[in-house]
Amino acid sequence: MALVYDPPTQRQTMSGPTDRNDLEVLSLAQCLSLLRSRPLGRLAYVEAGEPVVIPVNHTVDGSTVVLRTVVGGKLDAALVGQPVAFQLDDHDPSRGTGWSVLVQGRAELLEDDDRIARYEDELDSWAIEHGHEAAWIRIVADEVSGRRLRRSS
Amino acid sequence: MALVYDPPTQRQTMSGPTDRNDLEVLSLAQCLSLLRSRPLGRLAYVEAGEPVVIPVNHTVDGSTVVLRTVVGGKLDAALVGQPVAFQLDDHDPSRGTGWSVLVQGRAELLEDDDRIARYEDELDSWAIEHGHEAAWIRIVADEVSGRRLRRSS
Repeated sequence: MALVYDPPTQRQTMSGPTDRNDLEVLSLAQCLSLLRSRPLGRLAYVEAGEPVVIPVNHTVDGSTVVLRTVVGGKLDAALVGQPVAFQLDDHDPSRGTGWSVLVQGRAELLEDDDRIARYEDELDSWAIEHGHEAAWIRIVADEVSGRRLRRSS
Repeated sequence: MALVYDPPTQRQTMSGPTDRNDLEVLSLAQCLSLLRSRPLGRLAYVEAGEPVVIPVNHTVDGSTVVLRTVVGGKLDAALVGQPVAFQLDDHDPSRGTGWSVLVQGRAELLEDDDRIARYEDELDSWAIEHGHEAAWIRIVADEVSGRRLRRSS
């Protein structure tokens, strides 16, 4: 139903398959590559039936998105086992181009100290500088999808 | 419960009140100003209990966020009357600074041609160049909240 979830049509362009909105459908490999290209994305979850979106630091391990939040405890506990989404995009209005990748899955608390130490090295220091204890969440992906908009020629 | 919704504490900084994560709590005026500062944000909605996030062009009319999507019909109809969120952020990892604004409310279809013509003039051409008929949604805000992270000194 939604923009980013229309199945690819048979129409092909030089760039790959497109959906019914003429957006290029990105492959899983392309999506994962793009997810790794930025240090900060957005976590979406549902609270009392309403969607909430907050910026989070992240890294990618295989097809799993790993998030470090600056909050401790409460948010993380509420998310465990819940459906969540992680979204990342970029756009260039002057060129009429852009892309968006969406990961949908369930949130798990990450408590493996060795893994956390490794992820810590990979992550940008955006939040750590602020001196807060980090809380770690892993999103085990059920679906990874992405679209790219190119200026029509 | 969530990062961006903690009520301001009594702690004050030179920049304004902070929440329990030491994030600066932005005023409504600051939030609305930031919402106007970028041509593209993210619409979040709930589909079968799962959060979905897609990039959308937007403009701001008072405290109402107006979105133009490149999809026609189906997505828009499904959203009418539903709780949705609009989110916009920016960050500078090298400086350890960033902000995020979240608008929560209900989606309404916008069908006032005069208003649409005005909004059309205000909007960036990111999607229009692609040649699709636009569908317009208005988010009547129940809550507008924002936080800013500054590098701790």
